[in-house]
Amino acid sequence: MTEPLRAPEPAQVRTPAEEARTLVAAHASGLLATLTADGDPWGSLVAYGTLPDGAPVLHVSTLAEHGRNLARDGRASLVVAEDRGDPLDAGRVTLAGRAERPAGAAAESARSAFQAAVRGAERYADFADFTLYVLRVERVRWVGGFARMDSVGAGAYGAAEPDPVAGSAASAVRHLNDDHAGALLAMAAGPGGFTDATAAVCVGADRYGLDLWVETPRGAGPCRVGFAEPCAQADGLRGATVELARRSRR
Amino acid sequence: MTEPLRAPEPAQVRTPAEEARTLVAAHASGLLATLTADGDPWGSLVAYGTLPDGAPVLHVSTLAEHGRNLARDGRASLVVAEDRGDPLDAGRVTLAGRAERPAGAAAESARSAFQAAVRGAERYADFADFTLYVLRVERVRWVGGFARMDSVGAGAYGAAEPDPVAGSAASAVRHLNDDHAGALLAMAAGPGGFTDATAAVCVGADRYGLDLWVETPRGAGPCRVGFAEPCAQADGLRGATVELARRSRR
Repeated sequence: MTEPLRAPEPAQVRTPAEEARTLVAAHASGLLATLTADGDPWGSLVAYGTLPDGAPVLHVSTLAEHGRNLARDGRASLVVAEDRGDPLDAGRVTLAGRAERPAGAAAESARSAFQAAVRGAERYADFADFTLYVLRVERVRWVGGFARMDSVGAGAYGAAEPDPVAGSAASAVRHLNDDHAGALLAMAAGPGGFTDATAAVCVGADRYGLDLWVETPRGAGPCRVGFAEPCAQADGLRGATVELARRSRR
Repeated sequence: MTEPLRAPEPAQVRTPAEEARTLVAAHASGLLATLTADGDPWGSLVAYGTLPDGAPVLHVSTLAEHGRNLARDGRASLVVAEDRGDPLDAGRVTLAGRAERPAGAAAESARSAFQAAVRGAERYADFADFTLYVLRVERVRWVGGFARMDSVGAGAYGAAEPDPVAGSAASAVRHLNDDHAGALLAMAAGPGGFTDATAAVCVGADRYGLDLWVETPRGAGPCRVGFAEPCAQADGLRGATVELARRSRR
């Protein structure tokens, strides 16, 4: 891995809690681990919605083994994984806790969260064999890929915000690489500290900045460049990137 | 769903045990459910290889929570899911059993199966913190999508054969739809029993036959047409389909 020639400007990254919240918010299905009557671990696929505090909402049938398991013992964990490329290099998170049946207004919020996330959920909403559960998260394990991982407490998980630009990051990355190679090179050579950079491609974007892969006559390496302010809105990447490009060319 | 006008010719389909074996053989990563020290269910992502009897082979680190869990208690289940489209409409299978450390020749077979399936596995082969496990399958639950599901005993699972044409089915389906619309229509109108078929597209292929979606003036519906003999080899779809097309035009 080639290093920059001078110290790069500080560039914030998402915390593990933010990574976990972002992953969970971006998906609507995952693997549920529950306990059989014998206390054996049982894995199955489930759809879920997400409450504002990051707690997953499940809606399961007692005709399914996981539904009978939860009715008997609420202990459960949910794995949510990115669905791109090599699964073991993909980001994933395990949320472990206890599934509880919400009541009253909490049940209405849970039902709304599930129906907002899961296509066709209304069809089963009133089936008598289906039960709504909220997974009260007690422990979180996040893995960002090879050798990027951390444990997250329930408090930090609940308090973190999903990245608002997660939904537009992939298209922003494509656009930067297709049309703004010069700006990316300036970012790498300026704030990124790779003063001898000959080319730079964008490999990731989030609310705090961009990840670049930079080539130099000395070899290639990763480079992080940060925005002046974190993006607060879903459409914030464009403005933040323009500001970063201007600053890099000064 | 529109029905055929006369009884279709009998057409075999894969058994649930064959579906499960085919799914497991076609993948190399899945979701593992294990037990924590407190007996709570813990979900995580793992790579696996497959032994000739369908038993998954895991190679896990005691630095990972699932590795510590298995060292303490071998009870585990592995979920393998198709990675296409809506996850809850996709095929998936849960293999539940007990992870055991193989010894002697069994350890060599397990190591080979893991390395054959998992890219880069050699790198960790001799790391001291990694342990090889074989999941002895005791119970299998297969879900083929909405309302297609079955339980499979360990004996039936071990005795079944993965579909040899699974790897070439998608490209065969594309080729049939691109270049052989007339043959598909003849299959639907002949062996399929849809004598008033006006169009047919292929939606699936396996060692035993083809799944078609047929249009008629009365509406559209699914249609199964069978090969004269099950394909025995990976490249068997072409010959079997040619025979079926000839027979359909007689």
